Amino acid sequence: MDKVKRVSWVFSWRHLLLLSLTLNVSLLSRFIYERGIEIETDHHQRLHQELCFQKEVNTREAAMCGVSEQEAQVSRSSTSSSSRAQAADGGKQVINLDHGDPTMFEEYWRRTGEKSKIVIRGWDSMSYFSELNNLCWFLEPEFAKQITRFHRSVGNAVTHDRHIVVGTGSTQLFQAALYAISLLPPHASPQKPISVVSAIPYYSPYPSLTDYLKSGLYKWDGDAYNFTKDEPYIELVTSPNNPDGFIRQPVVNRSRGTVVYDLAYYWPQYTPITTSADHDLMLFTFSKITGHAGTRIGWALVKDKEVAKKMTEFIVLNTIGVSKDSQLRAAKILQVISDSNEHMGFPEDSDSFFLYAYHQMTQRWERLRDVVRRSGLFSLPEFSPQFCNYIGGFTEPHPAFAWLKCEGDIEDCESFLREHKIITRGGRHFGMEAKYVRISMLDRDEKFNLFVERLSNISL
Amino acid sequence: MDKVKRVSWVFSWRHLLLLSLTLNVSLLSRFIYERGIEIETDHHQRLHQELCFQKEVNTREAAMCGVSEQEAQVSRSSTSSSSRAQAADGGKQVINLDHGDPTMFEEYWRRTGEKSKIVIRGWDSMSYFSELNNLCWFLEPEFAKQITRFHRSVGNAVTHDRHIVVGTGSTQLFQAALYAISLLPPHASPQKPISVVSAIPYYSPYPSLTDYLKSGLYKWDGDAYNFTKDEPYIELVTSPNNPDGFIRQPVVNRSRGTVVYDLAYYWPQYTPITTSADHDLMLFTFSKITGHAGTRIGWALVKDKEVAKKMTEFIVLNTIGVSKDSQLRAAKILQVISDSNEHMGFPEDSDSFFLYAYHQMTQRWERLRDVVRRSGLFSLPEFSPQFCNYIGGFTEPHPAFAWLKCEGDIEDCESFLREHKIITRGGRHFGMEAKYVRISMLDRDEKFNLFVERLSNISL
Repeated sequence: MDKVKRVSWVFSWRHLLLLSLTLNVSLLSRFIYERGIEIETDHHQRLHQELCFQKEVNTREAAMCGVSEQEAQVSRSSTSSSSRAQAADGGKQVINLDHGDPTMFEEYWRRTGEKSKIVIRGWDSMSYFSELNNLCWFLEPEFAKQITRFHRSVGNAVTHDRHIVVGTGSTQLFQAALYAISLLPPHASPQKPISVVSAIPYYSPYPSLTDYLKSGLYKWDGDAYNFTKDEPYIELVTSPNNPDGFIRQPVVNRSRGTVVYDLAYYWPQYTPITTSADHDLMLFTFSKITGHAGTRIGWALVKDKEVAKKMTEFIVLNTIGVSKDSQLRAAKILQVISDSNEHMGFPEDSDSFFLYAYHQMTQRWERLRDVVRRSGLFSLPEFSPQFCNYIGGFTEPHPAFAWLKCEGDIEDCESFLREHKIITRGGRHFGMEAKYVRISMLDRDEKFNLFVERLSNISL
Repeated sequence: MDKVKRVSWVFSWRHLLLLSLTLNVSLLSRFIYERGIEIETDHHQRLHQELCFQKEVNTREAAMCGVSEQEAQVSRSSTSSSSRAQAADGGKQVINLDHGDPTMFEEYWRRTGEKSKIVIRGWDSMSYFSELNNLCWFLEPEFAKQITRFHRSVGNAVTHDRHIVVGTGSTQLFQAALYAISLLPPHASPQKPISVVSAIPYYSPYPSLTDYLKSGLYKWDGDAYNFTKDEPYIELVTSPNNPDGFIRQPVVNRSRGTVVYDLAYYWPQYTPITTSADHDLMLFTFSKITGHAGTRIGWALVKDKEVAKKMTEFIVLNTIGVSKDSQLRAAKILQVISDSNEHMGFPEDSDSFFLYAYHQMTQRWERLRDVVRRSGLFSLPEFSPQFCNYIGGFTEPHPAFAWLKCEGDIEDCESFLREHKIITRGGRHFGMEAKYVRISMLDRDEKFNLFVERLSNISL
């Protein structure tokens, strides 16, 4: 069978699988939902996790941990027995969905067993160097190979004629991109920091990530819709967008602008893959694809050689490269997924990570939409289905975050939900009104189930 | 046997071992030196490594890689056969000892076999979080435990009443320290960046690491001996010092100063451990202890809670924590060394990493000093022996770098050695005269042997 035929045959199997999965979603979700959920025994520890995440510690730490002390007491006293969460919780447990720790995919990796493990011997990868002929000399060749194979297998980004720059997560690569662009034409002005903008609602850490060192190279300049200066600028385009899940395009579209595409969520479980992205500077993060947030790995696909060189220079100055151990682990995990993609046409052997993750996200979003529809107090963004080249059928976006709006008279949605012990991130952090909040959809089942149940019990 | 007795008994065995090792050094070195060295087959690749190390890429890249193109040609044409380096090299191979890739310890780790390997399963350490009750919530508890045990076993630093902050190498921790100190009293001035100084000869990347983002928080202010401003400042004290190997103390000693101690080389193979360092802010790097530079891991021991919190905040903003995989690997490697320390009293079971490394460094320094003495063209720093608590006897410093001075009329030592195809880092990078160069003592045997042989053949 030639390749084209094999692909279309695989697609028809995928189509069937998709239909079958979609049909099963309601039944499955009802089953899981109704059987109840065991709370973990390490409740105290989890509570701290929920309350003291310090990702945006400079602006949020005090508020977050201020809540912790009071609410931890309430919660500790209420959960000394390991009874069923829904039955025993009684609305007392704090549910923190402010941050996006993508722990929901753990179960999939547990099932992969031996296939996904790596062994590192004492004398492996000791040198600073990985590949000396490569512009990014600390990039492990095996990881580079797996990145290319992975994008080809998913079809979400062009890797041909691109330099791969590996980073300690995409947060480091974001800073590397600002550094590179600010030091190269059309900017490269020693006098004035270049403006950095993004359209609202933007990824909430952008302002602090741009300004925390008070750099003379670049400076946060707010909402891209309001940018009117006739000078070089950097526009950050997150697509699908964090927090609201919509596919985005640049909005400034003026000369002397450079666009950085953050494609952290452009994967089949979150959004239909409609095209192979072909931008000059694209950032990806390992954590949101596979759930491995503890492995700090990201990569950039960069067209311009000088930009790639300057980004590499930043990473050398910042951390003298990127841990080889983590690159080797990421390579193994990507390899397991690519292997599973190749087998996904056979239902009896369907261990495809993306089908699994797509299924999970579909199920969660159906349940959330159902509760929101019934309550009448909230609303969610509405998306149109599009043809996903990867799944081989029409799919709807199922973003990693729910961008929830409080309807009616509720002006401060974050405070309103906090009264019900649901911790979210308020709209103002994203440059929007307080009527909106962002809610992580990627936490473990227990927490998501508790959240949906709590939300369904809220009334005015 | 009680603990005190066991320790002194162990020390006496250590003493004997030390004497025996010292006696063997000349014989061993002569044997290794005279048997010749096989050149590696990946010569072309090595050459690029030697010439294009980009650690200080913004100031050095052009010069370094400019040499590479010409000299690579010479070298490629001269080494098509895998003949013996000393015999066939004829002085044509470029020997780059500019950077400090600590590959000389690979052989030790190879010998440890299974003991030093780690296995990471697909579902291990997926969360951003490691220990939620810890101020530094991304620090793996097992790694924290091994750090404490390790310092106790070596006796080189106090860990009691200290916060451990893990970093992506000590380069990141250095920046975290600047960030923390600049935002806390006695500085915390929003108007003016705090001065950062270090006594010459200082670690050459300090100026660029401080200034590459043109931060408004801190600013490089040069040689600490020249610092006379009556305002808050940060003094960097590297001890033993890179490049010259001397033990150092702060030199400014004025009020409103904060001292950051970089103790990267305060380990028994490099210098006598005379005391357990007890400073408020001490930085350590994994790479220079064990040779694992590809694992980007370092740690800070921090007395002040607010400083530790701000450093943690920096690392969250910079890279959202530190890879768990690398922390787990570092924990295993430290554990193997601590285990070997406990057995080092028994000669028949002497697999102590530090004794091995001490032996290697002693041997290299004896050979280098011998060549320098004979040539009459160069000189090296002279050190006095001191009692090393770890070895249990008097030892001399054997720094990771040789701080070589060209005597007589040779004013530019880096250029002089470059004529003989030995690449070093010139004194001006360290704030000193060009009569000095820094030479890495930590490269693989083949390169070190070739270097010593080349140096011995230089005459005016």
